[in-house]
Amino acid sequence: MTVMDGLVDAWAVAATLAEIRARRPLIHNITNLVVTNSTANALLALGAAPAMVEGSDEVADFARISEAVVINLGTMSSPRAAAIRLAVASAVDAGRPWVMDPVAVGAIAYRTRLALDLLDFRPTAIRGNASEVMALAGEAGSGKGVESTAQSDAAISAARRLARRTGGAVAVTGVVDYVADAECLVEIHNGHEMMTRVTGMGCTATAIVGACLGVGRDGRTALVHGLTIAGIAGEIAAARARGPGSMQMEFLDALYNLSDAELAGRARLVLRAG
Amino acid sequence: MTVMDGLVDAWAVAATLAEIRARRPLIHNITNLVVTNSTANALLALGAAPAMVEGSDEVADFARISEAVVINLGTMSSPRAAAIRLAVASAVDAGRPWVMDPVAVGAIAYRTRLALDLLDFRPTAIRGNASEVMALAGEAGSGKGVESTAQSDAAISAARRLARRTGGAVAVTGVVDYVADAECLVEIHNGHEMMTRVTGMGCTATAIVGACLGVGRDGRTALVHGLTIAGIAGEIAAARARGPGSMQMEFLDALYNLSDAELAGRARLVLRAG
Amino acid sequence: MTVMDGLVDAWAVAATLAEIRARRPLIHNITNLVVTNSTANALLALGAAPAMVEGSDEVADFARISEAVVINLGTMSSPRAAAIRLAVASAVDAGRPWVMDPVAVGAIAYRTRLALDLLDFRPTAIRGNASEVMALAGEAGSGKGVESTAQSDAAISAARRLARRTGGAVAVTGVVDYVADAECLVEIHNGHEMMTRVTGMGCTATAIVGACLGVGRDGRTALVHGLTIAGIAGEIAAARARGPGSMQMEFLDALYNLSDAELAGRARLVLRAG
Repeated sequence: MTVMDGLVDAWAVAATLAEIRARRPLIHNITNLVVTNSTANALLALGAAPAMVEGSDEVADFARISEAVVINLGTMSSPRAAAIRLAVASAVDAGRPWVMDPVAVGAIAYRTRLALDLLDFRPTAIRGNASEVMALAGEAGSGKGVESTAQSDAAISAARRLARRTGGAVAVTGVVDYVADAECLVEIHNGHEMMTRVTGMGCTATAIVGACLGVGRDGRTALVHGLTIAGIAGEIAAARARGPGSMQMEFLDALYNLSDAELAGRARLVLRAG
Repeated sequence: MTVMDGLVDAWAVAATLAEIRARRPLIHNITNLVVTNSTANALLALGAAPAMVEGSDEVADFARISEAVVINLGTMSSPRAAAIRLAVASAVDAGRPWVMDPVAVGAIAYRTRLALDLLDFRPTAIRGNASEVMALAGEAGSGKGVESTAQSDAAISAARRLARRTGGAVAVTGVVDYVADAECLVEIHNGHEMMTRVTGMGCTATAIVGACLGVGRDGRTALVHGLTIAGIAGEIAAARARGPGSMQMEFLDALYNLSDAELAGRARLVLRAG
Repeated sequence: MTVMDGLVDAWAVAATLAEIRARRPLIHNITNLVVTNSTANALLALGAAPAMVEGSDEVADFARISEAVVINLGTMSSPRAAAIRLAVASAVDAGRPWVMDPVAVGAIAYRTRLALDLLDFRPTAIRGNASEVMALAGEAGSGKGVESTAQSDAAISAARRLARRTGGAVAVTGVVDYVADAECLVEIHNGHEMMTRVTGMGCTATAIVGACLGVGRDGRTALVHGLTIAGIAGEIAAARARGPGSMQMEFLDALYNLSDAELAGRARLVLRAG
């Protein structure tokens, strides 16, 4: 028995999901203009209570009363950047966990600087693709718009370094997802290629991680459990979908109906270092 | 025969729907970033002509030429608050009806103040949950983010008091919906629990009320007919849906296909005081 | 054999689609708040790589590295107008093609002025409804909100005049779509009435035109091929849909699965002048 107990156990993932459904944590999202609706719907389907609040007059108060804060850097603007700083400072001050999704960091200079600044607030968790995580860790990883130009395993050392800097946990997602912190590295072999044809699936995964944080999971556990839930819902949806339109619908239905048996039967988690 | 004729009559609801489909009223929406797409799609499925216009340079002119204005206070910001004031003042000046959806009022101080200010423009109709209506009426009703922490019947007296203040009509929605004005109270026993798992279903109901205002219904009739239409479409959708994803799709299809027979067979309206 | 070779040939449309799927062009969109999600999903389903970037601090750099820029004037605000000017100037400077969707131009004075200003940057392509194109060409064409009050053929001469002014190509869409430039006029008899019941289908068509520009097609070819792809996907979707909700889903699935045989069997293109 180690401190890693439950980290890569499908039944522990199921317990996290059950706790989200029972407690309905209030998740404060400041996210991009593309995925507000799909993120809110994914959190509702999962069983959480999402709220999208992004006005500078409102975010500090709201972050304080939320169970977790989800910060997504897509469609950035200076008013949204200002609101994000207020929200994160308030969350940290109130002891609330927060997760950052560094959309297109590395590909766009303005938001790379913003993301680097936000590291000072020590995000509990970060989820990005390989290009984004490499850029955050100070390596070249420019990306193609919002997409990675590198494989996820190329960013493992960057993720570890970034985790040491923030004291939190960092996930690199791709065909295989990796979750790293100062102590361990976990591989998640779930998900489906069709997820890349629906906009904001990565943003949705980050929000689901936020819901896991919202029921008290630590950064690495929230990343592993949240990404496993998202990946398995994606697999179930892809098996029913005829294309990206039905995929989006089936994904929400799969999240809503996700059972312990489905999680246990499908979870492909590997603890590589502990 | 009283002034309440047609208020709780399913065939009068059907007549309002037929008039929306025939006249295609232009509905000007200033709504939150989460539901712009789903609101526009619901109004199109219903048969109305939605337009989302929210720039301060544009809203006053546009409110003037619209058949009704729908104001939703979600994802508030100071630019959007300024645009809302301009739009509402213009609508009132031009004699256009308007409906307010006080999202998260009571839970967030900034938008509580904004909503109270907007009451001076005497909204033709207001639709909120119990916490929101209680907060607007000056009672404690903090809510949990965008959700109510109170049952809808707890807010009936608040709705009546608010209606007396504005001279319009006020709906409190929940498991049972209540519509109150200075003269009467109506109960609507339609809708389905699955609607709470799709983001913006309340916002959509408010927009449908706006379409009823847009074909000349007064505040209380627009609220009763609009909430009945939304609730019945929700019931039909829930019977076909496998989860919140398919629910959202089926809801739009149900609105589009809604027949007089479905309205007549499903409407559960009670006039409690007249 | 003329310079028009391939313009109205279904196999040339199929070749454009195959090239989008193979090359995955990065398409920079600055679009309205209603259709960010549906536009991104349509471009992903088509096979392109969409990015929604609209902050003034980011757009100039991003337009420069994109294969094409899509500018949509819906839900306009002064910050978004400023970002659009920066993006378009940068695109032109870098030799990138761009397409403009003049949503509600003619119906709203502020964005009519903006659209007229943008003509100075000579859009490679323009796609609008009859009211919008007539307003851009200086004729009265007020529209009803975002909808046209005129038939598309009423705007053919306006489209020709506008194309001569910009040096690019102009499409007027409606029951029949028309594409005009200085040399030719093409009719497209594809599409389905149910597309008018889903918000943003015109915006989506414009984005698909952007993807055609992104693989090197000239303005008129991108308009003809893009509108044909959108129209045929709409026909296939309508045949499977039960209403606007399933229509939206089926449209994305149809775009994703669109085959050469479907394009060849359904394309209804007429070269009226060459």
